[in-house]
Amino acid sequence: MLHLQAMVEPPRQELFRRLNLAPEGIAALVSMRGELLSTLGGRPERRVIDVDLMHLFRSWFNGGFLLLQRIDWRTSASVLERLIQYEAVHQIDGWRDLRRRLEADRRCYAFFHPALPDDPLIFIEVALTRDMSATIQPLLSADSPVLPAASAKCAVFYSITNCQKGLRGVSFGHLLIKQVIEDLKRDFPRIRTFATLSPIPGFRKWVETTADSATGLLSSETLAYVTSLGSVSSAAAAKMSRERRDELTRACAYYLVHAKHGSTPIDPVARFHLANGARLERLNCLADTSENGMTGAFGFMANYVYRLPELDRNHEIFANDHRVLSSQRIERLARQAVLVRPGQ
Amino acid sequence: MLHLQAMVEPPRQELFRRLNLAPEGIAALVSMRGELLSTLGGRPERRVIDVDLMHLFRSWFNGGFLLLQRIDWRTSASVLERLIQYEAVHQIDGWRDLRRRLEADRRCYAFFHPALPDDPLIFIEVALTRDMSATIQPLLSADSPVLPAASAKCAVFYSITNCQKGLRGVSFGHLLIKQVIEDLKRDFPRIRTFATLSPIPGFRKWVETTADSATGLLSSETLAYVTSLGSVSSAAAAKMSRERRDELTRACAYYLVHAKHGSTPIDPVARFHLANGARLERLNCLADTSENGMTGAFGFMANYVYRLPELDRNHEIFANDHRVLSSQRIERLARQAVLVRPGQ
Amino acid sequence: MLHLQAMVEPPRQELFRRLNLAPEGIAALVSMRGELLSTLGGRPERRVIDVDLMHLFRSWFNGGFLLLQRIDWRTSASVLERLIQYEAVHQIDGWRDLRRRLEADRRCYAFFHPALPDDPLIFIEVALTRDMSATIQPLLSADSPVLPAASAKCAVFYSITNCQKGLRGVSFGHLLIKQVIEDLKRDFPRIRTFATLSPIPGFRKWVETTADSATGLLSSETLAYVTSLGSVSSAAAAKMSRERRDELTRACAYYLVHAKHGSTPIDPVARFHLANGARLERLNCLADTSENGMTGAFGFMANYVYRLPELDRNHEIFANDHRVLSSQRIERLARQAVLVRPGQ
Amino acid sequence: MLHLQAMVEPPRQELFRRLNLAPEGIAALVSMRGELLSTLGGRPERRVIDVDLMHLFRSWFNGGFLLLQRIDWRTSASVLERLIQYEAVHQIDGWRDLRRRLEADRRCYAFFHPALPDDPLIFIEVALTRDMSATIQPLLSADSPVLPAASAKCAVFYSITNCQKGLRGVSFGHLLIKQVIEDLKRDFPRIRTFATLSPIPGFRKWVETTADSATGLLSSETLAYVTSLGSVSSAAAAKMSRERRDELTRACAYYLVHAKHGSTPIDPVARFHLANGARLERLNCLADTSENGMTGAFGFMANYVYRLPELDRNHEIFANDHRVLSSQRIERLARQAVLVRPGQ
Repeated sequence: MLHLQAMVEPPRQELFRRLNLAPEGIAALVSMRGELLSTLGGRPERRVIDVDLMHLFRSWFNGGFLLLQRIDWRTSASVLERLIQYEAVHQIDGWRDLRRRLEADRRCYAFFHPALPDDPLIFIEVALTRDMSATIQPLLSADSPVLPAASAKCAVFYSITNCQKGLRGVSFGHLLIKQVIEDLKRDFPRIRTFATLSPIPGFRKWVETTADSATGLLSSETLAYVTSLGSVSSAAAAKMSRERRDELTRACAYYLVHAKHGSTPIDPVARFHLANGARLERLNCLADTSENGMTGAFGFMANYVYRLPELDRNHEIFANDHRVLSSQRIERLARQAVLVRPGQ
Repeated sequence: MLHLQAMVEPPRQELFRRLNLAPEGIAALVSMRGELLSTLGGRPERRVIDVDLMHLFRSWFNGGFLLLQRIDWRTSASVLERLIQYEAVHQIDGWRDLRRRLEADRRCYAFFHPALPDDPLIFIEVALTRDMSATIQPLLSADSPVLPAASAKCAVFYSITNCQKGLRGVSFGHLLIKQVIEDLKRDFPRIRTFATLSPIPGFRKWVETTADSATGLLSSETLAYVTSLGSVSSAAAAKMSRERRDELTRACAYYLVHAKHGSTPIDPVARFHLANGARLERLNCLADTSENGMTGAFGFMANYVYRLPELDRNHEIFANDHRVLSSQRIERLARQAVLVRPGQ
Repeated sequence: MLHLQAMVEPPRQELFRRLNLAPEGIAALVSMRGELLSTLGGRPERRVIDVDLMHLFRSWFNGGFLLLQRIDWRTSASVLERLIQYEAVHQIDGWRDLRRRLEADRRCYAFFHPALPDDPLIFIEVALTRDMSATIQPLLSADSPVLPAASAKCAVFYSITNCQKGLRGVSFGHLLIKQVIEDLKRDFPRIRTFATLSPIPGFRKWVETTADSATGLLSSETLAYVTSLGSVSSAAAAKMSRERRDELTRACAYYLVHAKHGSTPIDPVARFHLANGARLERLNCLADTSENGMTGAFGFMANYVYRLPELDRNHEIFANDHRVLSSQRIERLARQAVLVRPGQ
Repeated sequence: MLHLQAMVEPPRQELFRRLNLAPEGIAALVSMRGELLSTLGGRPERRVIDVDLMHLFRSWFNGGFLLLQRIDWRTSASVLERLIQYEAVHQIDGWRDLRRRLEADRRCYAFFHPALPDDPLIFIEVALTRDMSATIQPLLSADSPVLPAASAKCAVFYSITNCQKGLRGVSFGHLLIKQVIEDLKRDFPRIRTFATLSPIPGFRKWVETTADSATGLLSSETLAYVTSLGSVSSAAAAKMSRERRDELTRACAYYLVHAKHGSTPIDPVARFHLANGARLERLNCLADTSENGMTGAFGFMANYVYRLPELDRNHEIFANDHRVLSSQRIERLARQAVLVRPGQ
C-alpha cells in the first residue's frame, strides 16, 4: 500500500512544491490554477494537473494556517481596493460605498494566508441590526443611518465572497462563519441571532424550466405573468397582486426544501448554508429589488440562521439524511405549495 | 490514474488535516510524529501512519512558507531558552554562554513556521572571523574577545541544529544556509569566505571497525595506540607524535573522500554539506578537544566551503557522479593515505 | 533665577499636562489650540493660554519623538483619507488622483507622533523624475505615465502640508525634508538633484500693490495688462507676448530676491525654503496654469534646490546676513529688472 | 507676564530640545541627568541645569505618552536582563529566579517611552494569590508552587522599581499602579483585593534614634535588645518573646501613623502609597526575614490596600489634612503604643 501511494504520486507535485520556494511562488501557483480552470473545458487532459494542484492547495490552505483579520477603515487601501474588485454578491460602488460597509454597525472579516498577506482568500460582510433584516437595499445604502453597535441584537451576514478563482474547491466559508460568530459573541454578548440575508440564485430559472410541467406549483396565469416580466423591474414586481405573491412564496419554499439534484438542493446558496449546519428560517418578498435580485429570484431572499451549538448536528442530518432543516413557517409553506395546487 | 491516486490516499490524511484546525493543532501533530518515530522500531506496522504524516509535513513545512528570523539578544527569552535546550552540536551552558553566541561578531538565524511562532524548526550559529577557523573552543568560549563585525572577512557556520524530532526527514538545512549566506552578503559585503567548522562524527568508529582490515591505512602501532586511548583526553592526544598525527590526517582525508555506503559518504555531516553543494576544503587537527570531539574523531574537524555560484553545479556532480568535491590539499592527503601504506 | 522661573510658570501648564493623561488627551489639546487660534483676533487676552500650549507643544512634538513613515497604497485608508482632506497646496481629487501620487515614481512621507498614530502632523509629496520639473500639471495628472523609479535622476518636492492647525508655529518642515532626502539617497543612489517645484503665492499681489509705484519694474502697459487679467485664464496668459513675459520674469526674480518685510522675504514659501538652507535655482513661466497658480503668480513657479552639505551654512548666511542665495541666472534676472526699466 | 516668562526661560532648554534630535538623544540626556544628580552635592551651582532638565523631562515623560507593557517570558531577553539589573526591592538572582516571577501566577508590567523602546522606566511585580500575603519569602522562592491564575482572589504588589536614575522626581508609580489594577480587573474579574506587601525601610533607624527619648514607646529592655541585635539574624528575631514582638508591632503602627517630618510621614514607602490614595491595612511580623528586611525593619512589612473608587478621595484627605488612613486594627495598635507605655 505504501509503495502504491508513493508510486502514484506524480512528480508534478514535487515540482509545484519547488516552485513554491520562489518569491511570490504561491501567488503564481494560485493564479496558474485560476487560468488552468478556465481552459479545462476545451482541454480535459489537463485535469490531472488540476488534481495535483488541488491536492497541494488543500494542504497548504488548511484552515489551521489561515489568519482571521477584521477589515475596517484602518485596513490598508491596497486590501480594501481588492474587496471592491472581488465583491461578488452585492457590488461595491467605490470608496464611499465601501466606507459605509465598514462603519460602526458593520463588520467585515477576511481570511488571509501568511504567505499572501495582502490578498484575502475570502471575506464576509456583516450588518449589526435590531432585527433579522428582511430587505437588502437599506443595508447597502451608503446613506443609511448608523446604528450604535451596542444596541444591536442581531448579526446579519449579507455577503460572502471567495476571492481566488485558483482556490475553487478549497472551502473556507464554513470555518470563516464559525470563527466570525465566535468573535462577534465575544464583542457583543447581547447579540442573540446570527443569520444570513441570502440570495436564492436558482429560483427563477427553476420556475421557468421546471415549475409548471413537473410540479404544477404555479397557476398558468402566474407562470405567464412571471415569464412575461423579462428583466423585471421592481416597480412591476411591486404591483404583483397579493395572491400571486403568496403563490410565488409557496413555490419558493417548495423549491428550497424539495428541489434537488440527486440528494442535494439545486440552489447553490441553500446547499452551502445547509451543509454548514444552518437552518432555513424565513423567506422575504421584495427583499432584493435590484436587477440581479429580480432576475434571479423575483426579488425573494432567504434568512438562514446559524446557532453554534446545533451546527454540527444539523450538518450530520443534512449530510446523511439529506433533510433540509427549516422553520415551521417554511415547512408549512412548502406543504401548502403542493396541497393548494393553483387553478384547482 | 486520477482515480487510482484518489483511491490510495488514506483517509488518515484527511483526519490529520482536520486535527490541524484545532488550536495548537500543528504542534500536537508534530509532537505526535516525534513520539511515533521513537516507537517505530518495535511497531513497524505504524510506518504507514508515519508516511502519511510525512507527506503532509512536506507540504505544510514547504520552504516557501518558512520565515527566516535573526536571533539576537533582543529575541524573546522563551525562544532563546529553546535554543539552549535544542542545541545539538556544541552544548550551550546557560544564559551567559548563550549571550556570547549572540554578540556583535556572531549571528544566529532560525526558520519559523507561521503557525508555530515561538518554536524554531532549525537554527544555525555563525561566527564572523578574520580567517577560516581551525579550532572550535575559542569560538565557543564565553570569554573570547568580541571582534568588530565590520572587520570580518569570513563567516564560519559552527553549529546547525534541527529542533523538531517530529520533522525528521523534512529538510530545511540547505535552504537555511543559502538564505543566511545571502543575508550576510548584504550586510557584510567584505566577507568573502563562507565556510563551516564541522565535526566528523563517524571517523573514529570507522577507524576502529574498518581501517585496519579493509584498507590497512594505519600502522598497527597507531591502531593500537588510538584503540588504547579510550575516551581520549586532549592532553593525551596533544602528545601524539607528529608522524602519528600525519598518519591519522591522511586516514581522515581518505575517510571523508572515499568511505561510502553504496554511493554516498558514510559520514553524515559530510553527506549533508556535500549534498548542499559545498566543497571539502581543509582538515584541522586538535580542532575540537572536548570529550565529544575526541571521542568522535580524535579531535579532527573539517571546513566545508560554500560558494553560492557553484552550489547547484556541485550538488549535481555529487548527486549524479557521487564524487566528493574537495580541495587539492585534501585530495593529495587521500592519495597519500593509500600510497604511503604505513608499516610498508 | 530658579525661583523666578518656577514662580512664573503658570499653573495652566500643569493643568494641560494632566489633561494629557486622559485618553485621546493630546488630540483634544491640539484641537483646542486650533480653535483657540481662530478666536485670538477678537480675544487677545487668550494669548497667554496660547503661549502655554505652545510651550508644551514645542516639548511634546520635539523632532526626536516624531516617526517618519512612508505613505503608500498599503497605508491605512483612514490615514490616506486624511491626506486627501489635509492637502493644502495641490488639491487631491479623490482616490484615483491620490493613487497616482503613490505610484512607483512618487514618494510620500509623513511625520507622526507616537500618541497620534492615525493622524499625520505634516506630509510631503515627491516626484521621481528625469529632470528638475518646470511645470506642475504633468506631475499632478492622474493619467501621466509612470516612470521606472530606477531611472530617476531627480527628486522633486511638489507639495508639503502642515496638517494640524493646532500646531501652528511648531515647525516640522525643515526636519522632514532633511530626513526624506537622506531616505531617498539611500534608496536611490543615482538621484543627484533634490529640488522643489514651489508656488510663489505673494507675487501677483505684490505686483498689483507695489511694483509700479515703488520700483517701476513693469511698464505701464504690462501693469495695465496684468491688472486687466482678473482671475486670468491660462489661455489668456499663454497668449502673452514674449516681451511681456520676460518683463514679468525679471520682476518675479526681483520680487523673490529683494522684496522684503524688514530683513526677510515677503514671499512665505521663499522664506521657508531659504531658511531651511535651500537655494533659489530657477523660475518657470506658465508652470502652474491652474486658477490658483494664475491668480497667485501669473502661473510662475520656482525651483529651490536642497544640497545636504550646504544646508547649514546657507541657513546661517540667510539668518545672519539676510541674503537670498540664488543661482547666477536668477541674480542676473533680478539685476536686469532694475537696469532695464521698462518704458525707458 | 508673557514676556517675563519668555525672558526667564533659559536658552539651555532650547539646547536640550535640539540635543534630543540626535539619534539616541533622549537616552543620552537622561543618563546625563543621572550623572549630574550624583555631583550636585559638591557642585550646587549645577542645580539650575537640573531644574531645566527636570522641566523638560516632566513634559517629555508625561504619562499620556507612556506605554504600559506586560512583561513575561516572551519578552526580549535584553529587556528581561535589565529587570534583573534594575530590581531595587527584592533582588533577582539570575534567570531561573526571574522566570519564577513571570510564571502564570505572577504579573509584571512596565512603562516604556516610545523613544526608549528597550529600556523600561519603571516596573512592578505582582503575585496572584488566594489571600493577602503576609510574608515575602514564599513569594520570592523560585521553587514555590504555581497557583492556577484563575483561582486567585488577591493581587499582591510586592516590588516596584524606578529604573532611571536620571528621571528622579518624575513620578510614574501612581499611574502605573492604577493602570495595572485596571488591567488586572479586566483579566481577572474574581480578584477583589489589590494590596501591596511593602517594606518599612525607616522603622529600625527611627527606633534606634528616636523611639526611646522622644516617645518612650519601647521598654528599655526591648530597646537594649533590638540595639544589640546588630545585623539581626532571622533566627535571633524568631526567638523574640511574644511580649517583645507585640511591643514592637505597636511601635511600628505608631511609626507609620504618627512619625512625620513636618506634615508627611517619615517612612518613604508609606509616603508613596498614602499619597497614591492607598490605605494602610495590616502589619506583618517576620514578614521579610532577609538581611535587608531585618536590618531595615526587624522583619516587619506592611500591606497597603488600593481600592480604585476611593483613591482620589483618600489622596485628597492625605494631601490636605495630612491624615494617614489606616485600618481599625492599625489605629488601635497605634493608640495602644502610647497608652501602654512599656515599663510603666
